[in-house]
Amino acid sequence: MESLNEKHLPKAIDLSHHLSELSKSRQPSPLKRLARYWGQPGLISLAGGMPAPDYFPVSVLSADTLVKDSFALVPTEKSSSPVSWFWKLFGSGGSTKKERTEHISVPKYASSPEDVNLAIALQYGTAQGLVPLQKFMKEFSSKVYQPAYENFAVLVHAGNTDAWFKAVSTLCNPGEQFLVEEWTYPSAMATARPLGMSPAAIKIDGEGMRSDDLRKVLSEWDEKERGAKRPHVMYTVPVGQNPTGATMGSTRKKEIYDICVEYDIIIVEDDPYYFLQFGKYMPKSERVYNTPRATKDVDEEAAYVASLAPSYLKFDYQGRVIRLDTFSKTVAPGSRLGWFTCNEVFAERLERQGESSTQAPCGFGQAIITQLLTKQWGYAGYVRWLRGLGTEYTMRRDFFVDSLYEEFHMTRTVATQGAWAGSTAYIARPRPEDVKALTGRDYADEKHAFGEKPLFSLVPPSSGMFVWLKIEFENHPSFTSPEDRAELELKLWTALAEANVLVGPGWFFAAADEVQKEAEGHLRIAFSGNSFEDMKQATKIMRKVFVEFFRPT
Amino acid sequence: MESLNEKHLPKAIDLSHHLSELSKSRQPSPLKRLARYWGQPGLISLAGGMPAPDYFPVSVLSADTLVKDSFALVPTEKSSSPVSWFWKLFGSGGSTKKERTEHISVPKYASSPEDVNLAIALQYGTAQGLVPLQKFMKEFSSKVYQPAYENFAVLVHAGNTDAWFKAVSTLCNPGEQFLVEEWTYPSAMATARPLGMSPAAIKIDGEGMRSDDLRKVLSEWDEKERGAKRPHVMYTVPVGQNPTGATMGSTRKKEIYDICVEYDIIIVEDDPYYFLQFGKYMPKSERVYNTPRATKDVDEEAAYVASLAPSYLKFDYQGRVIRLDTFSKTVAPGSRLGWFTCNEVFAERLERQGESSTQAPCGFGQAIITQLLTKQWGYAGYVRWLRGLGTEYTMRRDFFVDSLYEEFHMTRTVATQGAWAGSTAYIARPRPEDVKALTGRDYADEKHAFGEKPLFSLVPPSSGMFVWLKIEFENHPSFTSPEDRAELELKLWTALAEANVLVGPGWFFAAADEVQKEAEGHLRIAFSGNSFEDMKQATKIMRKVFVEFFRPT
Repeated sequence: MESLNEKHLPKAIDLSHHLSELSKSRQPSPLKRLARYWGQPGLISLAGGMPAPDYFPVSVLSADTLVKDSFALVPTEKSSSPVSWFWKLFGSGGSTKKERTEHISVPKYASSPEDVNLAIALQYGTAQGLVPLQKFMKEFSSKVYQPAYENFAVLVHAGNTDAWFKAVSTLCNPGEQFLVEEWTYPSAMATARPLGMSPAAIKIDGEGMRSDDLRKVLSEWDEKERGAKRPHVMYTVPVGQNPTGATMGSTRKKEIYDICVEYDIIIVEDDPYYFLQFGKYMPKSERVYNTPRATKDVDEEAAYVASLAPSYLKFDYQGRVIRLDTFSKTVAPGSRLGWFTCNEVFAERLERQGESSTQAPCGFGQAIITQLLTKQWGYAGYVRWLRGLGTEYTMRRDFFVDSLYEEFHMTRTVATQGAWAGSTAYIARPRPEDVKALTGRDYADEKHAFGEKPLFSLVPPSSGMFVWLKIEFENHPSFTSPEDRAELELKLWTALAEANVLVGPGWFFAAADEVQKEAEGHLRIAFSGNSFEDMKQATKIMRKVFVEFFRPT
Repeated sequence: MESLNEKHLPKAIDLSHHLSELSKSRQPSPLKRLARYWGQPGLISLAGGMPAPDYFPVSVLSADTLVKDSFALVPTEKSSSPVSWFWKLFGSGGSTKKERTEHISVPKYASSPEDVNLAIALQYGTAQGLVPLQKFMKEFSSKVYQPAYENFAVLVHAGNTDAWFKAVSTLCNPGEQFLVEEWTYPSAMATARPLGMSPAAIKIDGEGMRSDDLRKVLSEWDEKERGAKRPHVMYTVPVGQNPTGATMGSTRKKEIYDICVEYDIIIVEDDPYYFLQFGKYMPKSERVYNTPRATKDVDEEAAYVASLAPSYLKFDYQGRVIRLDTFSKTVAPGSRLGWFTCNEVFAERLERQGESSTQAPCGFGQAIITQLLTKQWGYAGYVRWLRGLGTEYTMRRDFFVDSLYEEFHMTRTVATQGAWAGSTAYIARPRPEDVKALTGRDYADEKHAFGEKPLFSLVPPSSGMFVWLKIEFENHPSFTSPEDRAELELKLWTALAEANVLVGPGWFFAAADEVQKEAEGHLRIAFSGNSFEDMKQATKIMRKVFVEFFRPT
């Protein structure tokens, strides 16, 4: 380990303080230890148990891939008529849309050794992944995330869940706590808890983790009361925050980074939704979709990258950020491929951990994705693909929130307190005709309790895949005390599921039990994968179920 | 956990005793907890963050795959002339051999929901893998390994290193020891050690792990002296034992299984080389390659399967075996795909662990391999492929040992003591002409020390990818005491590497430090991947280096 610190590393922090005992004890793989002889001219290596590539039954791997500009850069308004041509095009499963494709292929033996080939991609490889893929990742991280120090490293992993597993095992010892948004990605917690590492929840608002609460928690940390020493690791999803869909901007990130410097905290930035940034939701009547600036004086790729909320890497002058990127949302979840961007010390330890578990990610996936990214699309082509994809998700977000708008009586407000203080929140009440139908009373005139009281509220997501509804259970007729919320959440969730709409129950996303206990009750709804028709249908069912559920007895 | 034990499990053992604290604490993933609603007619799931398959940029994934009978069933003798046509055909890299291929493809949307399709394979999936692949694995394990109980489970993993990582974390707590062959696969030890789990070495002989030493170690276990309670887990490579190439037959396996019943030990059977079984090596002059029995009365597949050493599963009437299979040696190492065969309790816990780390294996790899196995080849076709592959490796083993025969003066003996007691071992001395050239003395007549004393000995492997040489360092001119061996091993290994032959140094494979200290000195040589020309050239270099190394000063 000592020798690693001699590399050109950020000097301000002693990174070895942040390595777990487990991580410190990992040795380089035997293959790595023979490295000094690799490349020796004429060397015959009989060292590793590598099958002859002639025995790989795949001679050529190929794919028909979508063209990089498959999706438009400017959103178009969707009709919500069930017979719209649009739904046919975007129907999930058995799509009838005519895709424009190109053919790519990876042969077993390439004519140039730098080209991707199956003899290498399907052979045992180092846990660093294919060389052309490493180069692409490095270029991409450099141009898009612009780390604040030069000698950062990239390292492949098998998706962000695998990456977080590796990161938390590398950084934390059993018994330690790590900082996390109070509502968060449940699999990340499920990964850490059995390792004996538990979350210390930080409050969130419309922009994600709150810097004031982070400082409060750290400065008031009481080892005895908390049952663990002050955390030195943070797990955070700063863009498309899961489940809330919040996007953290520059100012907040800089604030949090500075606190992490002050308290010597390593930031694990899990950022799968980074390229699904939509900006603020505007109701349909007020919405104007902008055309991108496309003049000969503007570099469109650079303008696009500049328009995105920055990564923590951009502020990371000390090398205390481990960024997790994945192809799960930008290529496909089944890719099980992504990469770390971090300092060289952490990258080396994470590589050691890869050697003794997953080894290199699957060669079939690496080969096809590398060929697509490096030969077919290139950096600019991939950025074009990401822009198109972001536009698609923008339309999805807008369509889904529009649909809620249509099914409920929505009002807009700037929240002044609670988790959404300062954000534009939307309050959903039953529509007048629903009140009339259920109670026989006129809603608009009388403002009676059922019509007036909100059913739920939301801050529409500015990125990601999810709408996070805060359910106003205190307006439920059987509500007597805050303890009722958990039961009511389960009841409402079950009523929806039995009416054929399956959503994420709020309690799944509580970082810790206390969070759920204090909570208002929530539902998380994905707008990422279904047909527009199904999304519309789901909001119609929600209308029916919600109104029935909250109906006075 | 309780509910699991209510399934039809072997009743004789309480499997929960064997689950680590870590494993016991893992919860089912949120996705799994929603399972009761999957399949509800008309259900609209907005629960998971699943991208629409329309956004996957791969429209069709395809491959040109080798035909199942690409390799012959009967070995043919290889000429060792460097201009042989054979080497051209089998040269690694830039092969000029004309491969017979077939085209397979996996579309994004399949016409039948049971067909493999990318909309599912590239989507988030459960850690159980693709359904058609699960079925294939189950059928394969059932027909080939014939577990002694009916309700065994299969579960995908990302290669055997990942599988062992998952198994040892599922079974062992930090501080525990597990049983292992004294010489073993180093990455398996590198995986377990940082988790705080250490090996308890069992002596081996020409058939692998010794049952008498296993009983001795277990019956004499002294918790205080050993620093850990008696092990309840065994890690073993029973076929193509790495590094020795031993194959364990039925009798020994039954003996060991019975001891494991007696001492309540879970057997993790890591068996990547299972289909590379060659039988005993016979020198070229005595060798006759048999043609397979191919009459209309004989089911060739069944006869082939019956000819293989059985898996521990065949004796596993109690469900205490976790078998690890991998496609690394039978398709390609880069597949990073394989499967567990074990009881349902362990399978459930291993699945939970998969959910919080690797999730499902890569969808690109799963899709292509599943299509190849289920649509193109089928069970019988895959067995035909495996038989052909086994024949290829038989020729490689024979060719490499023949080459040693040609470069050294070899004698055959049945060893009466040491690790090879009872096995047919080959003793290598320098060839008379080498002795004459180096010393000017006549070897055959005088039987002087240099000519008479062995340089190394070996039991040729009966399976796997490796030749394991025991180096007779006590015959080295500078040898004074057993402590010199480690240094001499490094010296010889370095001399070989600098002469352009890179092999595995013996110490890599010592399960524990004590093993290396007591050892004779070894080298492990892979015959799996190089061209026949390179293998021949390597033995020529070995001849030169060994003779020079042992030459009297």
